[in-house]
Amino acid sequence: MQLVFETPQLMTYLEEVFPQINGEFSVDALRPGEITMRLNVQERHLRPGGTVSGPSMFALADVAVYALVLAHLGGEALAVTTNASFDFMRKPEGGRDLLGQARLLKLGRTLAVGDVLLFSEGKAEPVARSTMTYSIPPKR
Amino acid sequence: MQLVFETPQLMTYLEEVFPQINGEFSVDALRPGEITMRLNVQERHLRPGGTVSGPSMFALADVAVYALVLAHLGGEALAVTTNASFDFMRKPEGGRDLLGQARLLKLGRTLAVGDVLLFSEGKAEPVARSTMTYSIPPKR
Amino acid sequence: MQLVFETPQLMTYLEEVFPQINGEFSVDALRPGEITMRLNVQERHLRPGGTVSGPSMFALADVAVYALVLAHLGGEALAVTTNASFDFMRKPEGGRDLLGQARLLKLGRTLAVGDVLLFSEGKAEPVARSTMTYSIPPKR
Amino acid sequence: MQLVFETPQLMTYLEEVFPQINGEFSVDALRPGEITMRLNVQERHLRPGGTVSGPSMFALADVAVYALVLAHLGGEALAVTTNASFDFMRKPEGGRDLLGQARLLKLGRTLAVGDVLLFSEGKAEPVARSTMTYSIPPKR
Repeated sequence: MQLVFETPQLMTYLEEVFPQINGEFSVDALRPGEITMRLNVQERHLRPGGTVSGPSMFALADVAVYALVLAHLGGEALAVTTNASFDFMRKPEGGRDLLGQARLLKLGRTLAVGDVLLFSEGKAEPVARSTMTYSIPPKR
Repeated sequence: MQLVFETPQLMTYLEEVFPQINGEFSVDALRPGEITMRLNVQERHLRPGGTVSGPSMFALADVAVYALVLAHLGGEALAVTTNASFDFMRKPEGGRDLLGQARLLKLGRTLAVGDVLLFSEGKAEPVARSTMTYSIPPKR
Repeated sequence: MQLVFETPQLMTYLEEVFPQINGEFSVDALRPGEITMRLNVQERHLRPGGTVSGPSMFALADVAVYALVLAHLGGEALAVTTNASFDFMRKPEGGRDLLGQARLLKLGRTLAVGDVLLFSEGKAEPVARSTMTYSIPPKR
Repeated sequence: MQLVFETPQLMTYLEEVFPQINGEFSVDALRPGEITMRLNVQERHLRPGGTVSGPSMFALADVAVYALVLAHLGGEALAVTTNASFDFMRKPEGGRDLLGQARLLKLGRTLAVGDVLLFSEGKAEPVARSTMTYSIPPKR
């Protein structure tokens, strides 16, 4: 697996296609086959009790694997999420950013699969695990 | 399966424990073992291209099954989502509300399982399918 | 959704491509979009304690949705299972056949999705729930 | 995470509770939090075309994570599989054993979660990915 985008190009492209990414998500590390994506946890991501909401964890897992697929395919890709699975294992802490460590497990002609572990920053045990599948439309 | 809450009590309770529900989600129908939950689709739920975002679909599926579990267990329950799976099958339309039709498949002593079909209002084919599992803590 | 195969053609085709189906699986009912598949539970499907094994439930869910996809696409299809999810909710009874009631949720150009409820024959509550996704290769 | 069983005790216990394991599955490596389980691929695990069947991959993933949970909990545990997810990414080769590399992601009081990558022996790319959840009944 080879990267087509490095972090700056990837972020520029993501901000263009995903305006809502701005100020919420950033890339901590990008290597062939792996990415660490950060959710800058803010008030709107929290649930009563000071934990990060499920939809925010969904968003982080989806953006992490989507960005990883894009970084290998380049900006023509219009990958669409077709399947997602989640195990929520511990409560994320509201006062810490959430990090998604994703691996690309398959980058096929029509399907890409990646999995993610989500961590509250500075904690050793994952708060959640997710797998994401994307359908890659044929090039026009 | 017997209901402990009818719709008004359920909504009152949900608004108390989930302040963010207000104005976003409402119950269209509630019967033993089944609920139809509505996401009042607004600007903030949309993605470029005028489709409803993945995190919004996650939120609807989670609220629908969670509310269904609560309606059968009552307000002492502190059920926690432990597993979620999704198949995204068609693009939801940004200009229509999203409806989640959920069934309770298991209401055990420690685990509850429900599944959901999501529809853009007025359309016959589901946009997504989801299953949710909740862990039910022992009564103190 | 329209059927291309009725039950006899479907069984003939399945026995041809899946020799191990013989004597294990049969079709109880087939309608557009829906199938009921039977696992003829035998000694080799059992676990200690007289329950049906997980791999046997996997096989029934997979054969049910695969057969349903084939019944709509015909025999040229070489659909491949790409994703599966399972919730195991109750113990199946070893002395009863297992029935899989499957629905076709999507029959796209490249992906098909169906879900299944598994029942011990004569029991009202499902023992398991599954979703299966198949990748449909382009016609040559 | 600390091991309660080393490999020989684990195999003895598995053969006692799972008679069908005999000659099919063996432990290649066991460390705190990690196991590598081997499926000794035989004629009965194959599908036409010389690939390993889905139910055999299910069995390997389930036995790998179940054994890993047992190795940390000891023989009193009666863990029951409650959820499973699979992504099938490449065809396993019929002529090679299948290895399952599992990690224990959570070992809670009532739920345990592990994930697995499955490989055809000697190949670098995983053929499948799975996550398994077990419910751990309270001690009597």
